[in-house]
Amino acid sequence: MQQKLEQYIAQIPSADSAAISQAQERMDSLIKPPGSLGVLESIAVKLAGITGSVKNKIGKKCVIIMSSDNGVVEEGVASAPQEVTALMTGLFIRGVTGVAAIARQMGTDLRVYDMGVNADLDIPGVINKKIRKSTDNIAKGPAMTRDEALTAILTGIEAAENAVKEGYTLIGVGEMGIGNTSTSSAILCAMTGCTAEDSVGRGAGLKEEAFRLKSDIVDRAVRQNKPDISDPVDVLAKLGGFDIAAMTGVFLGAAKNRVPVVIDGFISIAAAFVATKLCPAARDFMFASHVSVEPGYVKYLEQMDMPAPLNLGMRLGEGSGCPIMFSVMEAACAVMNDVATFPEALGNAGAEYLENIEES
Amino acid sequence: MQQKLEQYIAQIPSADSAAISQAQERMDSLIKPPGSLGVLESIAVKLAGITGSVKNKIGKKCVIIMSSDNGVVEEGVASAPQEVTALMTGLFIRGVTGVAAIARQMGTDLRVYDMGVNADLDIPGVINKKIRKSTDNIAKGPAMTRDEALTAILTGIEAAENAVKEGYTLIGVGEMGIGNTSTSSAILCAMTGCTAEDSVGRGAGLKEEAFRLKSDIVDRAVRQNKPDISDPVDVLAKLGGFDIAAMTGVFLGAAKNRVPVVIDGFISIAAAFVATKLCPAARDFMFASHVSVEPGYVKYLEQMDMPAPLNLGMRLGEGSGCPIMFSVMEAACAVMNDVATFPEALGNAGAEYLENIEES
Repeated sequence: MQQKLEQYIAQIPSADSAAISQAQERMDSLIKPPGSLGVLESIAVKLAGITGSVKNKIGKKCVIIMSSDNGVVEEGVASAPQEVTALMTGLFIRGVTGVAAIARQMGTDLRVYDMGVNADLDIPGVINKKIRKSTDNIAKGPAMTRDEALTAILTGIEAAENAVKEGYTLIGVGEMGIGNTSTSSAILCAMTGCTAEDSVGRGAGLKEEAFRLKSDIVDRAVRQNKPDISDPVDVLAKLGGFDIAAMTGVFLGAAKNRVPVVIDGFISIAAAFVATKLCPAARDFMFASHVSVEPGYVKYLEQMDMPAPLNLGMRLGEGSGCPIMFSVMEAACAVMNDVATFPEALGNAGAEYLENIEES
Repeated sequence: MQQKLEQYIAQIPSADSAAISQAQERMDSLIKPPGSLGVLESIAVKLAGITGSVKNKIGKKCVIIMSSDNGVVEEGVASAPQEVTALMTGLFIRGVTGVAAIARQMGTDLRVYDMGVNADLDIPGVINKKIRKSTDNIAKGPAMTRDEALTAILTGIEAAENAVKEGYTLIGVGEMGIGNTSTSSAILCAMTGCTAEDSVGRGAGLKEEAFRLKSDIVDRAVRQNKPDISDPVDVLAKLGGFDIAAMTGVFLGAAKNRVPVVIDGFISIAAAFVATKLCPAARDFMFASHVSVEPGYVKYLEQMDMPAPLNLGMRLGEGSGCPIMFSVMEAACAVMNDVATFPEALGNAGAEYLENIEES
């Protein structure tokens, strides 16, 4: 499996720099002050690098949701009981959760995977890829074996490949897994040297006692497992979850297929970050969406060095921010596709105007 | 006209506090951690206060664009020539500007008003309400007479009334007018005591020389005209423009009709702010959208004390941020309308669960 993953990663392309240059040139020639559409401009140009075309249209959209349970919940780090993972996984299919409601409104489909929910799910529509029922407790030892981590990543890759085969041209990456803010915090600490206290943070409404407990557990998980940070699969196996490992695979699979892929919140960006450690070029295919109020989110975002243009104060997960970002990306495409250039708008006068702007 | 405006303002209702309470109660009972959908939750609750219904659906949407010229451009404060106001006004109708492209993508119509463009426009689709060709130079005297300011406000009110009659249930407020960042800065200085330097700011890509010139002109305009800040119409007349005064009217007209209304960038928030000074209750019907990179924008936003959830680095104006905010509001409605409550999702177990959450 290690070899299979390495071979797959070797096929991940770079962004098309010629298309990026052409797209930037067209963007700068549109009838508006240069740069005045901010992130919409950079999104449209980045999309050109992904697809190789200056003009792009967002077609079918989906959010892939990876559900799984995390052994660390036995330490009491989570505010909701473990049963909620199975419950919410069923509710995605019923269409009555946050991401389900928002996705429907935005014309976005869901693809829900059971990667390791701690229950016997028999829910039509949930794709059963259960590795086993829950990972182990990272405060006591590794979450999973290396083979399990590789299986989860490859399953995520397959999920992205399947979405591409189904015709999706834009993919969001979400999750459900009680306890997965702790695993995401542990990965952050291990891979960036950030302290457990900074990674867990006091911002997300944790009471002091809960904050202390969670920080201690995250700290203990990192010290206990001593992951090899030069080996992202080892970090995932020791500190991650089946959800995060599978999401890492989705990011890689989207990049391999030159399909833009959107990061949701804290857990999603943890997986995106690990994907960039496995393959730096994968970053060229990723878009951050909203600034999660989970305190560790911004630490990951700093590492990723990309804009997160939605400031919605959200911390739900599920992939709930992705469909909103899809709308922003559709607006960005509309700018590139439908705004006139100075010459188109003004004829010869426009061409001269543009020349003067460029000279000044 | 003064009396007509006062009578109109007296009819602007307050938000429906009973509907807000009911909406907040329902929002808190949805199957998600309380508050975890952040701004989407507060938007959905605010909409309930506007319409009086807990559940809302965004129907027909439009952006009203007020085009007008500003005499202050003779001071050399604008980077584009005055002809651009007329040019862009025509291009809105051709559908090839930033706001036009984004609005079309988002299923949003445009309504374009000529309030005082300095050209004889004969463009089918542009609604001719020209007061006269351009205001006067605020660096030398008042922009317009008090009667002209009142006419512009009442025209904006009429524009909102017409949009409501056409069936629009969500309105954005945009503009086109070379020189109108200077008038918006002058209003900010006059009404908040902010310095011209802070109001103009260095952030928007102005070179040092241009920054100095613009700050000096804004400062001179305020000192020269000595507006009575207890009288917002006087401030508009002396320092504003036909565009800003008309936009102020749109905000008032939307509020009067209990229709949610979205602020775009710097000029739009200047008008929104003046509208709240004429009628504080109007604020209950307004939504900020994106954080403009025009430096004065955040100073207005602080005064308005409302979230601006889009961080897009935009400074185009035209109303270009409004259609994107419309999408966010549609997502907010979907959450309120389609996410299950705990009891709906879980039956009796859910009701108990909710009780436990409330007790803890």
